[in-house]
Amino acid sequence: MAGKIIGIGIGPGDPELITIKALKALKTADVICVPKSRLEKTSMALSTIKHILEEREKYPEVIELIFPMIRDESELKRLWNKNAEIVADKVKKGDTLAFVTLGDPFFYSTFIYLYHRLKEMYPEIELEIIPGITSLTACSASSKIPLAEKNETVVIIPYNIGSKQIEEMAKYADNLVFMKGTKHIKDLVPILERVGFTKNSTIIFAKRCTMPEEKVIVGKLSDVQNWDICEDYFSMTVIKRSYFQNNRE
Amino acid sequence: MAGKIIGIGIGPGDPELITIKALKALKTADVICVPKSRLEKTSMALSTIKHILEEREKYPEVIELIFPMIRDESELKRLWNKNAEIVADKVKKGDTLAFVTLGDPFFYSTFIYLYHRLKEMYPEIELEIIPGITSLTACSASSKIPLAEKNETVVIIPYNIGSKQIEEMAKYADNLVFMKGTKHIKDLVPILERVGFTKNSTIIFAKRCTMPEEKVIVGKLSDVQNWDICEDYFSMTVIKRSYFQNNRE
Repeated sequence: MAGKIIGIGIGPGDPELITIKALKALKTADVICVPKSRLEKTSMALSTIKHILEEREKYPEVIELIFPMIRDESELKRLWNKNAEIVADKVKKGDTLAFVTLGDPFFYSTFIYLYHRLKEMYPEIELEIIPGITSLTACSASSKIPLAEKNETVVIIPYNIGSKQIEEMAKYADNLVFMKGTKHIKDLVPILERVGFTKNSTIIFAKRCTMPEEKVIVGKLSDVQNWDICEDYFSMTVIKRSYFQNNRE
Repeated sequence: MAGKIIGIGIGPGDPELITIKALKALKTADVICVPKSRLEKTSMALSTIKHILEEREKYPEVIELIFPMIRDESELKRLWNKNAEIVADKVKKGDTLAFVTLGDPFFYSTFIYLYHRLKEMYPEIELEIIPGITSLTACSASSKIPLAEKNETVVIIPYNIGSKQIEEMAKYADNLVFMKGTKHIKDLVPILERVGFTKNSTIIFAKRCTMPEEKVIVGKLSDVQNWDICEDYFSMTVIKRSYFQNNRE
């Protein structure tokens, strides 16, 4: 079996934030796999790389793997088993498959589901990972505020973490990152103030960084109550304990 | 003043993990700035991009800015004020300067020192950031173990954090990342076991990922005592609370 699967991170959305390694793989892979959350939607990952595929002598085969955003773990497993079968069939024929994900394939990515299923069901299949620029550093670049410096710690908190755990984790954190959707950010202010964040702590709300619809708001924790934040799956919030104070801005 | 300064992340070391955006900036910048920790050493950042500069019609001016690894904040500030002056003089002449850093310019990078000095001393100078692949996702790609998935939290701990703080931060962490040098990793095992990590928790030691001298060791927390780890500035350790158990490997 000469085929393999390459998990490719294509970065946060700006087509120029793709690496040369990813670009080469996208130009040569036999089959391109893209994740889609629902049948009727256009894959954002595919839109970001479409121009690369169109420059190829022959437009490659593109497989859209459906990845519904559901919580039911056994149903998810069933769907990903099916996706793993589709992918493995191609690899067994000798094809090289590029599975494309926004950001990085190993940082809260849909690729990880497929990866686990493939490793368990087809341990003989070769898997390669090409890392990508994450939304994390894209947000720092767009806001022009460093993510972490010197001896600062960073705590990354995904969606659906309880407020008690957030409070405990924030106690010793210099920088807090809330990933993918920041629904209850206004409710977090009193929690963060209990663990030493102040009204002057810096808060960055970033949505679709490096994409055409990019929106970045930078302010102080005390400003948040007046912010009109429009929630988005591709949004994140970074809170820095003492950035403005340290840098006298 | 038409000049500007671009902080460019060139990724973890593999020259192919540079983004197209960074490549374009390196091909057109009037002056390339690279950080060097000591006069006598070769800049690793420069070695990584030298081939790009050599492909240019005319090899650009390269300025090596000395950044000693010292703790004295006031001496550091004095040196970086000097570096900021050197850089600002060029920008005032209309030059575009590309400051090159391994990894990402806003993630524990030497560029941040310069950035703060420039913002304070020359607020009129235009600053642009091009994000880069961090050692974090490079380590995940090389070890083929995801950094974070689903509702997992990530805690990033730099060098020189006390063991009490590490213990507190580890309590609620699913994934722990120890950045740049992991000297006391063997001493951390009992601390981590006190907060629910087990002998079966996954540990990844990664050195110079994606560089020719890359070394990655994956094992269980109980293996660490027997590991012969060679410390390195470009090394990191990732500890995953329950990866092997969850994924039945």
